[in-house]
Amino acid sequence: MQGTDAPESNVDLLIVGAGPAGLMAAAWAAHTGIRTRIIDKRSTKIFTGQADGLQCRTLEIFESLGFADRVWKEANHMIEFSMWNPGPDGRLRRDDRVPDSPIGISRWHESVLHQGRIERFFLDNIAKYSKGHGNEFGVERGVLPLSMELDEGKVEDTDAYPVKMVVRHLDEEEASPEQSAKGNGVSDGLFRSNLAPDDTDELVRKTSGMEGREEVINAKYVIGCDGAHSWVRKQLGFHLEGEPTDYIWGVLDIVPITDFPDIRNRCSVHSESSGSLMVIPRENSLVRLYVQVNEVKPDAETGRADRSKITPELILKSAQKVLAPYTLEYKHCTWWTAYQIGQRVGTNFSKSERIFIAGDAVHTHSPKAGQGMNVSMQDTYNLGWKIAHVVQGKAPRSILKTYQSERRRVAQDLIAFDHKFSRLFSGRPAKDAADEAGVSMEEFKRVFKQGAMFASGLSVDYGRSMLIAKEGSAKEQGDGTEVDSAAAKVVGSQALCKNAPVGMRFPSHQVLNQSGARPWPFQMWLKSDGRYRVILFAGNVKKPEQRKRVDRWCEEAERDEGWLKRYTPAGAPVDSVVEILTIHSAPRVECNLLEDFPAILHPLRANDMGWDYEKVFVDDQSYHDGHGEAYKGYGVDPDKGCVVAVRPDGYTGYIGELEDVEGLGDYFSGCLLPARKAANGS
Amino acid sequence: MQGTDAPESNVDLLIVGAGPAGLMAAAWAAHTGIRTRIIDKRSTKIFTGQADGLQCRTLEIFESLGFADRVWKEANHMIEFSMWNPGPDGRLRRDDRVPDSPIGISRWHESVLHQGRIERFFLDNIAKYSKGHGNEFGVERGVLPLSMELDEGKVEDTDAYPVKMVVRHLDEEEASPEQSAKGNGVSDGLFRSNLAPDDTDELVRKTSGMEGREEVINAKYVIGCDGAHSWVRKQLGFHLEGEPTDYIWGVLDIVPITDFPDIRNRCSVHSESSGSLMVIPRENSLVRLYVQVNEVKPDAETGRADRSKITPELILKSAQKVLAPYTLEYKHCTWWTAYQIGQRVGTNFSKSERIFIAGDAVHTHSPKAGQGMNVSMQDTYNLGWKIAHVVQGKAPRSILKTYQSERRRVAQDLIAFDHKFSRLFSGRPAKDAADEAGVSMEEFKRVFKQGAMFASGLSVDYGRSMLIAKEGSAKEQGDGTEVDSAAAKVVGSQALCKNAPVGMRFPSHQVLNQSGARPWPFQMWLKSDGRYRVILFAGNVKKPEQRKRVDRWCEEAERDEGWLKRYTPAGAPVDSVVEILTIHSAPRVECNLLEDFPAILHPLRANDMGWDYEKVFVDDQSYHDGHGEAYKGYGVDPDKGCVVAVRPDGYTGYIGELEDVEGLGDYFSGCLLPARKAANGS
Repeated sequence: MQGTDAPESNVDLLIVGAGPAGLMAAAWAAHTGIRTRIIDKRSTKIFTGQADGLQCRTLEIFESLGFADRVWKEANHMIEFSMWNPGPDGRLRRDDRVPDSPIGISRWHESVLHQGRIERFFLDNIAKYSKGHGNEFGVERGVLPLSMELDEGKVEDTDAYPVKMVVRHLDEEEASPEQSAKGNGVSDGLFRSNLAPDDTDELVRKTSGMEGREEVINAKYVIGCDGAHSWVRKQLGFHLEGEPTDYIWGVLDIVPITDFPDIRNRCSVHSESSGSLMVIPRENSLVRLYVQVNEVKPDAETGRADRSKITPELILKSAQKVLAPYTLEYKHCTWWTAYQIGQRVGTNFSKSERIFIAGDAVHTHSPKAGQGMNVSMQDTYNLGWKIAHVVQGKAPRSILKTYQSERRRVAQDLIAFDHKFSRLFSGRPAKDAADEAGVSMEEFKRVFKQGAMFASGLSVDYGRSMLIAKEGSAKEQGDGTEVDSAAAKVVGSQALCKNAPVGMRFPSHQVLNQSGARPWPFQMWLKSDGRYRVILFAGNVKKPEQRKRVDRWCEEAERDEGWLKRYTPAGAPVDSVVEILTIHSAPRVECNLLEDFPAILHPLRANDMGWDYEKVFVDDQSYHDGHGEAYKGYGVDPDKGCVVAVRPDGYTGYIGELEDVEGLGDYFSGCLLPARKAANGS
Repeated sequence: MQGTDAPESNVDLLIVGAGPAGLMAAAWAAHTGIRTRIIDKRSTKIFTGQADGLQCRTLEIFESLGFADRVWKEANHMIEFSMWNPGPDGRLRRDDRVPDSPIGISRWHESVLHQGRIERFFLDNIAKYSKGHGNEFGVERGVLPLSMELDEGKVEDTDAYPVKMVVRHLDEEEASPEQSAKGNGVSDGLFRSNLAPDDTDELVRKTSGMEGREEVINAKYVIGCDGAHSWVRKQLGFHLEGEPTDYIWGVLDIVPITDFPDIRNRCSVHSESSGSLMVIPRENSLVRLYVQVNEVKPDAETGRADRSKITPELILKSAQKVLAPYTLEYKHCTWWTAYQIGQRVGTNFSKSERIFIAGDAVHTHSPKAGQGMNVSMQDTYNLGWKIAHVVQGKAPRSILKTYQSERRRVAQDLIAFDHKFSRLFSGRPAKDAADEAGVSMEEFKRVFKQGAMFASGLSVDYGRSMLIAKEGSAKEQGDGTEVDSAAAKVVGSQALCKNAPVGMRFPSHQVLNQSGARPWPFQMWLKSDGRYRVILFAGNVKKPEQRKRVDRWCEEAERDEGWLKRYTPAGAPVDSVVEILTIHSAPRVECNLLEDFPAILHPLRANDMGWDYEKVFVDDQSYHDGHGEAYKGYGVDPDKGCVVAVRPDGYTGYIGELEDVEGLGDYFSGCLLPARKAANGS
């Protein structure tokens, strides 16, 4: 009951739910500096989610936020995938081995690390960056949303706070975790064992002085990241579409004692007639087993299985049958659960582009492809910077529609992939070609190999919109949402940078710093700080004709109302909204930063910090780490170069000739709003 | 005045001084779990030391302790060294460029990061590992040593605490830092600016309740790491031998505003007649300049210069003259100082192998070669595990003599190098071949290139001793100390592992985990946990004859009184004193850990943790990261293999054939004491 004494305050962004999707949204808020709160009804970091798979793309994103190294150090890297199934004699044998992550697509490999560690790194990162913006915030735990209203009349008013949410700060008793024994009797482990030493602070419940009281929060934007049973989604009346399947799976996190040879490899194991399982080798000697449980069937009427019948002993017994004649036992089990695969996608991802839902709240599917946590985090990685840009007056509200067109389409593709993969994984291996009820192992292998690219997260290809300058139909390339505005008329020249498709994440190749010769994976400079980047492939600047082209391009960049300064607030550094990074192809030792590159490419920094030596790179041989072959890798002509615009989330938005300054200007006119040049204009 | 009420306690190791050398000693104590205290008379982490250069070898050591990644991320990596001197026209020009670190010797490059950050990482690491041993300790600040006595009658009694030190816990007033204005009037910067956000805790002085009181600490061992003016050294009456030189140098840490092209490269700049300078590009846009200051000369009588005459303005003016016609200005200076090069080495590094001195307390030299902090840390990296082994009853006291024989020799070599380098660096460039008073730039370049290997820290080659099984004279290869005992009669067979010289650090090549195919730089498995390692180059185990050799070797390793179990306490894991790591050369996919490798190579772990999958590696093609060519790299016959013993600090101690089990046993009989097999025998 909301009393008149409930305190009331305004915030740019209110995030409901502090799982990976919510934390990713909060990370953008921290890195861009918008006023943000993130609440979670649970009282401590103890949580139900137990995801662990990390795609290559997710690791790239973590790197752009600054904590991929922490993940990479602790995670188990999955290198090889082996497929086991019955041989002609019916005996289990290794049928094939393939690399788990496709070769050559990323510096990172698919990895596995407990969700609790990922959340730890997010929390540290959010604290650091939000503090850096003088706006420190962290997760507020034990805060339960009670009601949410949207004032539809104010949704287009950029200064308004049209969402009113009433929340209740739980008292000690209400906030006690109920996770160790769920209502349905399925216990899923000792959650406290998931808390690492550096989580100590989280065990001490922060008291806010608000315990037991209600509060009114007025928000410009809300993101519901509150899981499969999303309260936010229910308030909006949105639904998930799809059905559960017949397959029941158990999950065991154990330290295995076994003579199965591939227990430290990712494996699929199809037994002749006892079902299948998947092996996921994890950090700290743990192995996760996904095991098909045939003993428990879905109820004929409801289609739902009684999960309370499933025990760790039952799951182990099923696993032993699949793995026979190999043995499997364990003494240590850190967690276990059971689930029935359900594949569902939300009908709507937003209400009036003021309230958004993301992650498990809008898509559910099988965990075995290791996609769930990744796709959820990437939902809000797609959304967070867009909200920040609109809040900060940098971008028109129209860009917010691309969240649904881009991410709902990804969710649909994910469900289609999961559907195919789960069916092949759950089925009985075919005895021979005539055995149509069985699953062809050849087909399974083919789908797995195709799926590896999908599973890496690097095949995401966003459709045409004001943010993605490419050909085709915006509706067909997205989820049907209309995002094809007048501003989206510009089409990039893909042929100039063949291997960085517009709509996909801009790839990484090694380049050298022109000044200090240090080799860098170029992607390390695409930091998640909310800025667009224009990558000037300057070509061979030692050829006079090309140098002239570069000079002319730089003159345009320097123009007061040109494509760059038009969006830069008065008095702000020239690289504060769009940053120019240069990669040239002339021999490094023949060039000199100050002589061979116009000042706009290495601008004098504010506060008497001298020239910026970290914006001009070269594609050349390094002393210790070989040649990055970046021009070849990107597919750019090393003499003539080109210009690429990359979105704040690292996706290629536009490609053009150095002369096509108009195209570049048109592209940004759809993404950005001209800066208010008044003193308080930023 | 020590009252009878002064509390008294015992400790295995007492470290005096919490700079890099002291912290490295403390890191060993934390990783091995001996009872340790580390005191520093200064009240906060604010400090005078401003070293920043990190050798390849130092980074390897940091990796073995677990924090190289933190350094590598924040540090500036120095890739290229360029040499500037006057051309035939007298005008300054870049004469040559060379890689700063020799190519192919290490995954790490010479790097630069402020000493304060290094100390931060040590403090975190010490807290984590000492806590892991249930023995958490940290630096006790504001604790001043007052007196120290050694009971010579007890030095050979391993259970005794022969060193009695009285310390005084400073009160608030005494503990106030006096560093911002030294007695001689030379101010050297704002020290608080060196404290990073994660140092916040250090700003709050820890109160121990002992303020203003004295305490008696009885220690088994003491290490004095208390700097060039070492109190510990003075108590022992030991001296430094050597002389100051005539060269006066100024140091400026600035954000330069300049048109000098190589300001982000490490450079030497010799001007025609205005002296020379060195450029060290650092983290956070900083550049350190070492500038020769000719305006101030040493006093003819004392040989010492009046440093109070040197100001930042004077140093800048000198730098401007050297760099002309290029311009140099700055607005930000974070630190500056001036020094007169003095090259000195201590006469003794220990008193009765109970009190040791290390770091600046036993060697001083020019900072320009970036050696100081590195050699200091490596002193205690050499010593710490030896003390831990003796304290834990694993090793005889005789091994402690190797500290002086190994490290005093390194200090002597360092001084010789520094002498040559400094002279060439400080001199005026020769006008032509006839100009004998000038420095030949050709000679300078030659010495620099030769010196790069020395400066990497990877040329250290410890002499023959009970810990280093090689030919030659122990006295000649060391500093003259007698370390050639009966136990040191064994000589390794260098030819079996050509590229891992006995006495030098065991190098790193990429190998794959047999079970999971993950590529690892092999060195990552040589952790600083106090264990010796025996590396079994098992060769091609799929060849029956070689498999038999491996089986026989493993049988010996399993023998109750054999070279391994003889040193392993009853009930302790078989790998607790010496760990066997295997690298084989058969094709990975043809092998299976459990079938092809005897159990001793992947032993069942305690507490029902199953087989150890992290001890057997293979030299094979990886999926994503090429072929490590480890057998080729180490110079080992891929069919026959060999056996290498590596000391706890990563230095190669012994090499032998698989059949030479006696040699391996003889080697360890000099390093280790047979385990007491009683219940409390460890």
